[in-house]
Amino acid sequence: MAAKKPATLPPRPLPRVLLLGLLPVAAWFVLRPLLDPVPSLPALYTSVGFSILAFLATIYLVPALGPSFVKAGLTGGDLLKPPESQGLVCASIYIMLLMLFIPFAFSNFILNFGGTSSHPEGISVPQFPHYQLSVYLSSLLSLLIATMLGFLDDVFDIRWRHKLPIPVIASIPLLMVYYAERGNTHVVVPLPLRFLLGTLLNLGPLYYLYMSLLSTFATNSINILAGINGSEVSQALIIALSVIINDLLYLPWPVDFRVPLHLLGGKAELEFGGVWSAGMAHGSRELVERHLFSLYFMMPLVAVCTGFLYHNWYPARAFPGDTLCYVTGMAFAVVGIQAHFSKTLLLFFLPQIFNFILSCPQLFGLVPCPRHRVPRYDADTNMLYPSECELFVPGDTTKTSKRKLGALALKTLARLGLTELTVHPTTGEVQKATNLTILNVFLVRLGPMSEKRLVQVLMCTQVAGSVVAFVVRYGLAGLVYDGDRR
Amino acid sequence: MAAKKPATLPPRPLPRVLLLGLLPVAAWFVLRPLLDPVPSLPALYTSVGFSILAFLATIYLVPALGPSFVKAGLTGGDLLKPPESQGLVCASIYIMLLMLFIPFAFSNFILNFGGTSSHPEGISVPQFPHYQLSVYLSSLLSLLIATMLGFLDDVFDIRWRHKLPIPVIASIPLLMVYYAERGNTHVVVPLPLRFLLGTLLNLGPLYYLYMSLLSTFATNSINILAGINGSEVSQALIIALSVIINDLLYLPWPVDFRVPLHLLGGKAELEFGGVWSAGMAHGSRELVERHLFSLYFMMPLVAVCTGFLYHNWYPARAFPGDTLCYVTGMAFAVVGIQAHFSKTLLLFFLPQIFNFILSCPQLFGLVPCPRHRVPRYDADTNMLYPSECELFVPGDTTKTSKRKLGALALKTLARLGLTELTVHPTTGEVQKATNLTILNVFLVRLGPMSEKRLVQVLMCTQVAGSVVAFVVRYGLAGLVYDGDRR
Repeated sequence: MAAKKPATLPPRPLPRVLLLGLLPVAAWFVLRPLLDPVPSLPALYTSVGFSILAFLATIYLVPALGPSFVKAGLTGGDLLKPPESQGLVCASIYIMLLMLFIPFAFSNFILNFGGTSSHPEGISVPQFPHYQLSVYLSSLLSLLIATMLGFLDDVFDIRWRHKLPIPVIASIPLLMVYYAERGNTHVVVPLPLRFLLGTLLNLGPLYYLYMSLLSTFATNSINILAGINGSEVSQALIIALSVIINDLLYLPWPVDFRVPLHLLGGKAELEFGGVWSAGMAHGSRELVERHLFSLYFMMPLVAVCTGFLYHNWYPARAFPGDTLCYVTGMAFAVVGIQAHFSKTLLLFFLPQIFNFILSCPQLFGLVPCPRHRVPRYDADTNMLYPSECELFVPGDTTKTSKRKLGALALKTLARLGLTELTVHPTTGEVQKATNLTILNVFLVRLGPMSEKRLVQVLMCTQVAGSVVAFVVRYGLAGLVYDGDRR
Repeated sequence: MAAKKPATLPPRPLPRVLLLGLLPVAAWFVLRPLLDPVPSLPALYTSVGFSILAFLATIYLVPALGPSFVKAGLTGGDLLKPPESQGLVCASIYIMLLMLFIPFAFSNFILNFGGTSSHPEGISVPQFPHYQLSVYLSSLLSLLIATMLGFLDDVFDIRWRHKLPIPVIASIPLLMVYYAERGNTHVVVPLPLRFLLGTLLNLGPLYYLYMSLLSTFATNSINILAGINGSEVSQALIIALSVIINDLLYLPWPVDFRVPLHLLGGKAELEFGGVWSAGMAHGSRELVERHLFSLYFMMPLVAVCTGFLYHNWYPARAFPGDTLCYVTGMAFAVVGIQAHFSKTLLLFFLPQIFNFILSCPQLFGLVPCPRHRVPRYDADTNMLYPSECELFVPGDTTKTSKRKLGALALKTLARLGLTELTVHPTTGEVQKATNLTILNVFLVRLGPMSEKRLVQVLMCTQVAGSVVAFVVRYGLAGLVYDGDRR
């Protein structure tokens, strides 16, 4: 983080009406499944209630625990700065509530209370099938390991390139339980390739590799798009909201609604909702369960991210550290894997994928990569400018072939308008280039802007990415996949 | 830890023959289940192999990672001291191997490999029943939370009395899954009380309270018997070994052996071993499975404790921190609860129970409790002396009633020879007392001794406690419980 704000900002005010107003709402949602008539998805109410509690806990605990973090030296190396690593608080609240949620999702005590009234019409999921408990627990284990590794990363300050593979460790419980539960390793082959590979392809061990790569990507892609106030949390927030909207399409809503998706290039109108067909689930109870599973993880995540963003918004009073990136990334990987919509999930990561591909020349050493690539802050104008990396400094021992490849990559990117080069006036050699991140691209294309503005641009891009994702998923996917299986 | 040794001790030498010799042994044990004929408890071999790997990993990684801990400031507040909190290394290795063990215990891939040979005679457990996977995972979650909380305790240095209830948090996954799995909350009533309560008593919610108290006790009782080189690890090691010996009595050994327990006061000779009766399990496959479950957790624990003790032995090159106490304590609670032998387990904690009861006057504020109660080191003689707490210092605001109660407790304990008092020559008022810990009792009763000697005395006491525990469990328990149920 670039130090620039006055060091001792007072914490943001917390209106007491928030606590007093939201607590009863949360209590109602938690207890609603125990009231007659039992709703068709009782635990979903509890999950909403728990999410409100998670939001309240985050928004109150983050400033309250700040001084302890400062005392323990967790301030990003500078004692005058606001507390760093407070993603730990979010992660702890998140995981703790997910644990307390277990009896609501997996035991029949709701039904025991719910009494004798008639069963709701349509698809209802009063409790998860029992084997799903191990899947849920393995997900919690992965989240907890991710939290732990993120925090260790903050404490031990692991070198940037060494920590890329760390999320693989956190995916081990997922993989082990997936194996022990004899999880499905088949993928549906896209239509154009079916003449070669058939309808279903068994990836076997490759599927496990895919799952751990997904965890690694989801975690690191958020972590490398970081460094300005609110950037990590807002990305996670928007992705989680997109996943939730997608999940909602698969639930047995009591109301029907249609979306004229043929306008987007789809084959037919799509019908959502309906207690029997359960929208996109087309009557499959399994699909309803999968997306419920995803909702149970995503709703509290949105809650803690919203609560934390309140304190992390420019000028930030608290920083997330690596812990938050690890735990949110892992949460996305968990729902993508366990609820089987990893391809849809990746669509919600479009800005991150763009940023990752753009970063590749620096990640893989073709172009020098400074330790921090965040935009440069100018104290006089209070604006952010693109940060630059210096190429070909005297004494550089990079191989000539690598250099040439790097210069070629930079020139190509410059022609695409994704970087700005400083060229030697006589030799024409590239001397400097703006760092290859999406944040610098914004500054190159749109000109210098304030930190607050930059994070707003980032958020708009993320939202736009999600809109594109939905168009692709529900509009264009019909061209390469048939029907409603995934 | 009392600072006393030269600050920069070189790490203990690690003979390379250890690595070269043990690696093939570990590999054989891990792979043995895949060879024909499949043994009756195949995953037990894998567990032994994994334990050897855990031992090797601990003994090599602890000194290798020491400098990182020192660099991160984890040295117990003093930069010149050896690294503190290295229990984190042990805990990480332990939990990681337990996770990698999942496919061996819970999937049928051993059987798939094992081929076509005839089934072994007697009770065999080729794989755990599937519902046990969630129990296993919830145990891992509890262990991981304990590790995390222990490490946070080390980083944030939580006040002594505030951290007593922390292990309750770590027991939440255990309780939640116990509930979701509709775990048994009945206890067998001792014979003398049956006329009142019947044979089985349903404790209901009280059983959950009991489980979380057991976690709290197991964790804290080791944590308050700490402070000298090797004390925490050696306690955990001896308790774990005792649990293992107890577990072995319930396995289907191919050899029979008898122990003439009537000599100890039991009713009859006890027969151990036997592939059909499986020793004390008396033919119950469920009991065999429970004690296998316990072995899977205890064997790697013994391994990491042994490996760590090598570096923690006087003069210590590495300190465990709270992390190790938390994770070992939680591991004992986990096996006691999940394998249903919590009463037997508590018998192995006799020295800890004694120490806890002895500490009560200081824990509950009757007698002043200094922040550290470890024995006092005298640099001239290189010996440890009992440490003392001062009573009734001027300006003390303790209530008179409390004071009187404290003085009474101290005088009673002094008469029992458990503390030494310094009495005012004229008024007869107690001015000082040795701190109420078992370590100080040893020094009071046996005279000052070196730190190495003191930890040896502690270890002998722990072994003696376990011997008493076995006599009580298999000799005297017949007087209050009938038969082989627990």
